[in-house]
Amino acid sequence: MTTMRDVAKKAGVGVGTVSRALSDTGYTAKATREKIFAAADEMGYAYDSASKSPVKTGIIGVMVPLLEHPFFAKMTDCLEAELYKHGYKCMIFNNCGNEADPTGVIYMLDTGILAGLISLADPPSDFLGRKGKAIVSMDRGWGENVPVIRSDHAQGGRLAAEAFLESGCRRVIQFMGANLDAGANDRHAVMEKVLRDNGCEVTSVRTPWNMMGYSYDRNVIRSYWNVVREMDGCMTNDIAALSCLSIALEMGVRVPEELRIIGYDGTGITRLCHPELSVVEQDCTALAEACVDRLLQLLRGETIPEMLTLIPVKLKKRGTT
Amino acid sequence: MTTMRDVAKKAGVGVGTVSRALSDTGYTAKATREKIFAAADEMGYAYDSASKSPVKTGIIGVMVPLLEHPFFAKMTDCLEAELYKHGYKCMIFNNCGNEADPTGVIYMLDTGILAGLISLADPPSDFLGRKGKAIVSMDRGWGENVPVIRSDHAQGGRLAAEAFLESGCRRVIQFMGANLDAGANDRHAVMEKVLRDNGCEVTSVRTPWNMMGYSYDRNVIRSYWNVVREMDGCMTNDIAALSCLSIALEMGVRVPEELRIIGYDGTGITRLCHPELSVVEQDCTALAEACVDRLLQLLRGETIPEMLTLIPVKLKKRGTT
Repeated sequence: MTTMRDVAKKAGVGVGTVSRALSDTGYTAKATREKIFAAADEMGYAYDSASKSPVKTGIIGVMVPLLEHPFFAKMTDCLEAELYKHGYKCMIFNNCGNEADPTGVIYMLDTGILAGLISLADPPSDFLGRKGKAIVSMDRGWGENVPVIRSDHAQGGRLAAEAFLESGCRRVIQFMGANLDAGANDRHAVMEKVLRDNGCEVTSVRTPWNMMGYSYDRNVIRSYWNVVREMDGCMTNDIAALSCLSIALEMGVRVPEELRIIGYDGTGITRLCHPELSVVEQDCTALAEACVDRLLQLLRGETIPEMLTLIPVKLKKRGTT
Repeated sequence: MTTMRDVAKKAGVGVGTVSRALSDTGYTAKATREKIFAAADEMGYAYDSASKSPVKTGIIGVMVPLLEHPFFAKMTDCLEAELYKHGYKCMIFNNCGNEADPTGVIYMLDTGILAGLISLADPPSDFLGRKGKAIVSMDRGWGENVPVIRSDHAQGGRLAAEAFLESGCRRVIQFMGANLDAGANDRHAVMEKVLRDNGCEVTSVRTPWNMMGYSYDRNVIRSYWNVVREMDGCMTNDIAALSCLSIALEMGVRVPEELRIIGYDGTGITRLCHPELSVVEQDCTALAEACVDRLLQLLRGETIPEMLTLIPVKLKKRGTT
């Protein structure tokens, strides 16, 4: 019986390369692919004929709102590493903070330049769902045909509420994104409910967070400072939470005695302050693994068992609660 | 006389697309390119024949050590935006923090999957210089054929030294990378000289900074804390400088009265603390523009006027000096 090793020998390449080409799970140069398929055909070695499709770039697009944002930078590092393990390269698209056109991504999928797409951003406005395309979304809904990987933000909201309650908070403010349909906003609804059920006042401020970046987030907290200082707890993203801590220190407000702060995301920057920030930490490695796992299933044409996958978050209690 | 508009009309595409294809300055789909060149040939419209080469991906590789590092994240955002302006897409390669193989980048250049490369990282160990390839390096030397874009780090070292002297420092410590050949290390030599010429003691600690990331940098400062506390000035990268500030606050060392701190890079994180960090700021926008400008010259086959381009830095005096 012909083995993969025989095909590799005949094609003059390694067994790993043959495996990648025949199972269509990674990049192989065009000339090499042709040699491998010719050898397999000649020797009668069976493979899934879909693997033979001529367009094989091995390039996966990763669409992010902004790399400067530390959560997206970390996620991109993790996705690139995870894709690399499976023989894929990573092409990054930013769709916020510059004029990059997200419909370009769909064009590159349609023409086969990209083998698949992992998106951490909203879909293009004219995206109508593409059945059969290898697209995975993190957090946001891209329509019924696109699997979603998401941190368990409801758990995150509950953990934050419990941490505020344990430290004796009575009046908590939270800052949330403008797009309340986004799954990331589950945390706000759950935190508000748990706190109210326990007799706390909750103020929820909706801001156009899609305007991202260090100076924007800092300015939001500064402009709401008169509201924040009437509170004894504040939950917001890492950048805004660090801004909140630094303004409190500047104004002589004691943290955590007078104001407890919880950062949401838990990226590396939250330990670069004193006191270190208490956070709800998203597990970037597990999120990236789940995204890539789902994408590989789509590329292999498998049925997706669950269209929504939730990854647990953790509360890291440090110095600000 | 045949105009570009005539060629566009005959090929059934926009003038911008014709311009991109004939001047070879951006991505055009293969079928469209063929129509455009056929129309131009038929109508006798002149163009540089080098543009007609079949391999036109419009994809530029950007190689970075680690996106989680805020300077590289910001640079990647700026490079992606600048490349997009000129019709190019960006493919990211991390070469530190995961197992990604930098020689894969060279393979993708050789096979035409990448039209060019901008590297913010060291060259692969077996890279011997490729004359005629469109490669631009930021900071590091990639051999005599590769143009280098670099912040004026000597100016940065001088500005930092002057800031320490103005604030009355007498004993300054600086942390520097292991690879003293890297142009980024000019700042250390110049700062040390200017400070010594003015009667200051200088301690220069060489660390394997190539081990990057939030927790590594924080641990370095913590392990050197007994040395740092004997000093009255400290210069290091943004992450380590923020760590230095937070440890000082934790230990009750007054900043800037007892210890002045200067961060090198000046990314967004340096304003998320109290007092805000004084920094030497690299101009990421100008660095990205210069990298892309140089790359476009190489893609057009032009002679590079200067193999080394220096971009000015700025001292931003804030709360820690």
